[in-house]
Amino acid sequence: MGMPVGRHTSMIAVIGAFAGGSSTFRLYPTRRRFILTPSMSKQTLPTMETLVGFCKRKGIIYPSSEIYGGYNGFFDYGPIGAEIKRNIKDAWWRDMVHRRDDIVGLDASIIMHPAIWKASGHIDGFSDPMVDCKTSKMRYRADQLFFAPVIVEGETIGYVCVLESGGMQAEAEAAAEKMKRKLAKQGELEPIKLKDYTAAREDEYARIPSPATGEPGSLTAPRDFNLMFETNVGALRDAASVAYLRPETAQGIFQNFKNVVDTTRVKIPFGIAQIGKAFRNEITPRNFIFRSREFEQMEMEYFIDSDDATWQKVYREWLDWCKQWLLSIGIPEDMISEDVHPPEKLSHYSKGTTDIMFEFPFGKQELWGIACRGNFDLTQHQQHSGKSMEIFDEARKQKYIPHVVEPALGVDRTFLAILTAAYCEDEVDGDKRTVLKLHPRIAPYKVAVLPLVKNKPALVEKAQEIYTRLQKRWHCAWDSAAAIGRRYRRQDEIGTPYCVTIDFETIEQDNKVTVRDRDTTEQMRLNEDALMQFLSEKLDV
Amino acid sequence: MGMPVGRHTSMIAVIGAFAGGSSTFRLYPTRRRFILTPSMSKQTLPTMETLVGFCKRKGIIYPSSEIYGGYNGFFDYGPIGAEIKRNIKDAWWRDMVHRRDDIVGLDASIIMHPAIWKASGHIDGFSDPMVDCKTSKMRYRADQLFFAPVIVEGETIGYVCVLESGGMQAEAEAAAEKMKRKLAKQGELEPIKLKDYTAAREDEYARIPSPATGEPGSLTAPRDFNLMFETNVGALRDAASVAYLRPETAQGIFQNFKNVVDTTRVKIPFGIAQIGKAFRNEITPRNFIFRSREFEQMEMEYFIDSDDATWQKVYREWLDWCKQWLLSIGIPEDMISEDVHPPEKLSHYSKGTTDIMFEFPFGKQELWGIACRGNFDLTQHQQHSGKSMEIFDEARKQKYIPHVVEPALGVDRTFLAILTAAYCEDEVDGDKRTVLKLHPRIAPYKVAVLPLVKNKPALVEKAQEIYTRLQKRWHCAWDSAAAIGRRYRRQDEIGTPYCVTIDFETIEQDNKVTVRDRDTTEQMRLNEDALMQFLSEKLDV
Repeated sequence: MGMPVGRHTSMIAVIGAFAGGSSTFRLYPTRRRFILTPSMSKQTLPTMETLVGFCKRKGIIYPSSEIYGGYNGFFDYGPIGAEIKRNIKDAWWRDMVHRRDDIVGLDASIIMHPAIWKASGHIDGFSDPMVDCKTSKMRYRADQLFFAPVIVEGETIGYVCVLESGGMQAEAEAAAEKMKRKLAKQGELEPIKLKDYTAAREDEYARIPSPATGEPGSLTAPRDFNLMFETNVGALRDAASVAYLRPETAQGIFQNFKNVVDTTRVKIPFGIAQIGKAFRNEITPRNFIFRSREFEQMEMEYFIDSDDATWQKVYREWLDWCKQWLLSIGIPEDMISEDVHPPEKLSHYSKGTTDIMFEFPFGKQELWGIACRGNFDLTQHQQHSGKSMEIFDEARKQKYIPHVVEPALGVDRTFLAILTAAYCEDEVDGDKRTVLKLHPRIAPYKVAVLPLVKNKPALVEKAQEIYTRLQKRWHCAWDSAAAIGRRYRRQDEIGTPYCVTIDFETIEQDNKVTVRDRDTTEQMRLNEDALMQFLSEKLDV
Repeated sequence: MGMPVGRHTSMIAVIGAFAGGSSTFRLYPTRRRFILTPSMSKQTLPTMETLVGFCKRKGIIYPSSEIYGGYNGFFDYGPIGAEIKRNIKDAWWRDMVHRRDDIVGLDASIIMHPAIWKASGHIDGFSDPMVDCKTSKMRYRADQLFFAPVIVEGETIGYVCVLESGGMQAEAEAAAEKMKRKLAKQGELEPIKLKDYTAAREDEYARIPSPATGEPGSLTAPRDFNLMFETNVGALRDAASVAYLRPETAQGIFQNFKNVVDTTRVKIPFGIAQIGKAFRNEITPRNFIFRSREFEQMEMEYFIDSDDATWQKVYREWLDWCKQWLLSIGIPEDMISEDVHPPEKLSHYSKGTTDIMFEFPFGKQELWGIACRGNFDLTQHQQHSGKSMEIFDEARKQKYIPHVVEPALGVDRTFLAILTAAYCEDEVDGDKRTVLKLHPRIAPYKVAVLPLVKNKPALVEKAQEIYTRLQKRWHCAWDSAAAIGRRYRRQDEIGTPYCVTIDFETIEQDNKVTVRDRDTTEQMRLNEDALMQFLSEKLDV
């Protein structure tokens, strides 16, 4: 199952993109040397089963509370995963906040005043339609339940119902055939046209079979289920003490908009960026860390004035910035695409939304949403709090509520996208190997130091000396156990870009070390100063 | 109100501590050049009122949900505060995880299986005693409510009750005097001896006046109130769906102990470190970010074998490590002290606990707890989950459950300690100034670049060039507005260690810039390369 290792073409595309980048949204091309990690093509994506097993085995991601049988929708990042996650967040913060002059950071609390969720519309509208099976007590998301009438020669002989999946059409057709045989109906079966349960008519609810029992009559009508986790703050447990775990970080930014304007020196246009946990009580969490109940967001609200030309320009600039950022952390260009929301799918206040889609193993799904939210959120907070959210426009001599462009990205989804792109199986010297081709910014360890043997004190001492020197600059691994080939494989699996081996030649002859490249497995010998220089060029990107 | 700027003696103490540091617990003295920020002495600590106002004004910390009237016990970190908080966490992670070979990181979820909190004892025992006033509906923590009988010539004429505070003794005495006068009692008033409400006898409850109404008869007996925030996971809201927001990060480590042992190459002794949010539904949150309802912890569990000599040695080593770490981020040595818990105050499973105390403006309070928890937690999880937590000891050829030493530190408390130590008011050139003497690792901006004037293109261009170069290595501020003196003050207030000014001389004569030191306000002129060298020495510590 060897996978292609080539595809350096995307690197050229990135460099091109930067050369033509606007001066407002710069990613400091002079500093970055985009070492794009070559990745696989779509046909050879790892399966989710492979990724989940690999993550568990290598200490990247564990199911939460595993010793108690797990806890659906929650995950723990292990020693390797915690480093990767930190690196993703750190890269975003540096590029979004530190390396720009027009964006400041914020870190608001997860639990906020419940009035915020009233103003934002989440208390009234942040819900999924769900369906109960009264017999089995199972609960489904209505939009993940698909049904169709089974029609033979114009007569509806019953209904089939299946859970959303890649094979649901075939599954539904097989069930229809079975029904036709069972009822001994003659004639042509009309094509099965699946619709989701939110499109069912009232008279159909009682005729659609429950996926749990296979029998009709037990499914309820769809009902709205609010996705916010509720809790109570303070000693009393009553209506006044109800609070919510934030379902998005964005509102923490909006409610602090005036605070930031009043206490810092920002001027429109400017952005406020935030990274933090958010929670959604998903009815059916799925696809590993793609849709979990606890997740982390990296959101930025870019405040602008209200004219059309401005938001269209800023919208496009952010879309480009976001795509370029993904490339800069090693996401291959041909795994992402744009999904522009058609006008009829937009919220009434939205002027435009585009999702950057990624080719996950389970299909193309949303990775990064860039939304023009008008001034809906600030206006809502002004109305509900009675506090002005207006800015004075010096040029036009008038007050206005700024509009906003919001790029909202999930840390966990980015993590999964990076894993999907970086996971490779290839062959080295006739042996199969698993290698995580992570961008140096994302790799948990940047360098591993390997003394060839561990029973030669002078050699180990030299290796320690080099390790100490490297560790001052980068997060390094030390591995002195097992054969050198096996140690290389261990580092390949967790994505360490370079291994530095200290051998007999080092201490007895030339004082040089062997540097091995993870992706090409090529090796070269360098003296210590050249090593530092080489690694600095490759790693400090 | 000039404050002393001296006290460099603590630096010598730190260097001494490192020279004698054990080799196991090293802080890489060769790398760190401890630029300890001189701080004030105890007599001149800022008041909490000063700090809270300052934090709001400078975009460091805002009350949460302020536009909706605030939300008791929750805080938002503004643009400056978010950077300081990041720097604290980053310094801890680097020193605790990256610069040690025996500790790995973890990032577990906030919501975990509820069985974990049964096993840990939190469901049954994590509570505070509270008292209700039935008349006012006010609720108090019993251990923060102080009462005393008022005794005149041996006769108890009534009770006084006050809320815990520095002045509560005087307050209680005044209330007793008033009662004596009101009841027209003659004779000597016996000394008022305050006890907290948990020590009240049953027959006293009805006689102790409520602090809300001043009248006796409305206070209830103390009742246990669990401090964990509750929520429901999944679509149903019943007993089986109850879950908790973690009240500490430690249990996320214990429940993953076996996962980490099985999927990484750690060997006893080793540690697992974690940074993350935790939540406690405090009845009376207070002292700003010292005791809030949502906070962030930096916890590490160090797993060791079980013999006495080992835990005593490791306990002492961690206590030293923690103190040294505090000094290394700028906490003055004479503001911290040790509080060794006496044996009778320890939990039944604990072998020893010491708190590192800090002189907060409201008194000496716990900053960092170092606890020897035996193998209580792992044993509990083994019993409750039925999964073995044992490790095989190769030397003794036997299995055992490892013991643990736990240094547990709050991010927010560390933040408040740093602010308390760093906040200074002094006089420069006859003007009062406020300066935040933050350690370079903690400072939100490391350097500010200031073009002397903004209407001279060549000068601004030169400044931009230097800014771009500096920004590649450090988080930098750019300020071109207002008189230079005012700009210096702005940077002093947010703790920027160095300002770099580009003036006419730079572009017309020597190509040198002026570097100004925040603490001494001393200035020197350097060329660009010397500037980079100087800043690297001062900042990369």
